[in-house]
Amino acid sequence: MNARRRSDDRTETIMQAVLDLALESGYAKLSMEAVAARAGVGKDTIYRRWPSKGPLFLDSLLSLNQDVLDYPDTGDVLADLRQQIHAAVDLLANPPWGPLYRALIGEAQHNPAVATGLNDRFIRPQAGRTVARIKAAQEQGQVSPDFDLDLAMAILSGPLYFQLLITHEPLTHEYVDRVLDALFAGMGPRSRP
Amino acid sequence: MNARRRSDDRTETIMQAVLDLALESGYAKLSMEAVAARAGVGKDTIYRRWPSKGPLFLDSLLSLNQDVLDYPDTGDVLADLRQQIHAAVDLLANPPWGPLYRALIGEAQHNPAVATGLNDRFIRPQAGRTVARIKAAQEQGQVSPDFDLDLAMAILSGPLYFQLLITHEPLTHEYVDRVLDALFAGMGPRSRP
Repeated sequence: MNARRRSDDRTETIMQAVLDLALESGYAKLSMEAVAARAGVGKDTIYRRWPSKGPLFLDSLLSLNQDVLDYPDTGDVLADLRQQIHAAVDLLANPPWGPLYRALIGEAQHNPAVATGLNDRFIRPQAGRTVARIKAAQEQGQVSPDFDLDLAMAILSGPLYFQLLITHEPLTHEYVDRVLDALFAGMGPRSRP
Repeated sequence: MNARRRSDDRTETIMQAVLDLALESGYAKLSMEAVAARAGVGKDTIYRRWPSKGPLFLDSLLSLNQDVLDYPDTGDVLADLRQQIHAAVDLLANPPWGPLYRALIGEAQHNPAVATGLNDRFIRPQAGRTVARIKAAQEQGQVSPDFDLDLAMAILSGPLYFQLLITHEPLTHEYVDRVLDALFAGMGPRSRP
């Protein structure tokens, strides 16, 4: 039990050291060595659990912000999506973490281990949570029964990543709301009775 | 007039040299020096028109594939979007150019000049063409009059960039078709008469 608690404490120390260092000097200068030194542990301790700094940074960011990932279920799917996505863009698309998350995705374009870590540790679990929330809404008649659940994550978050990674325009709550409204209304004309 | 033609010829030689070199050794190893040597021109000639390899690579890719960017207008907006987007993903999201385009977007995450070049030379003009096509469809009653045109580019291409940059799953014609169908149908339940 004491060993377990010591290990948990050490993990928390490492997670915090990663974020402190990333904030101080940016993602590009983050290194496994510097994290080990700051956390006061051996390099081996870090490498035993994280193959590279990409997954290490992502775990730190997520472990200290776990509540941001969960969708509420108040029975109003639009309100619930709004609330969760506002929290997610506050964390991942705006300072201080936004530029670091963008840098990590940049690295994922040429480093397959980072791309895999991003998908295994964040994107796939988050897609699962998104599908579960949309499915519940579908069963309550709040989402079209024809809506393709497999596309839920790409359709809901794609327009946000487009802003984050391509246009680099600010990702505001207002933008999120407009995107959600447009997606729920659909592009096609409403069929008339 | 002869000077103009010589300049056009030289531009085409440079554009082709960029693509040949990028295909041979990848985006990371592409350099302004290597392009100048391959095209048989001075480095100054390259730097006079392109500040860095990002915009140079993008111009090459687009100048030799200009037809891919235009939307047809047959009067059927879904068919026209399908055709244009299929061509765009064939070019930008699949081998041989897809990995190079991804690398360029990766670089744009830490190099503001590349991000600006990407938006000025490709994204913004393409968004303009997209809005024009959707606006025409709106006027013909094929797109909801309420659809927010400012979001057209982000909503139509966001789910594709999500696949290209985040999940790295294949971008097939079938995926494009499913996304278009879902966007036109909308996530909300159809209102009943």
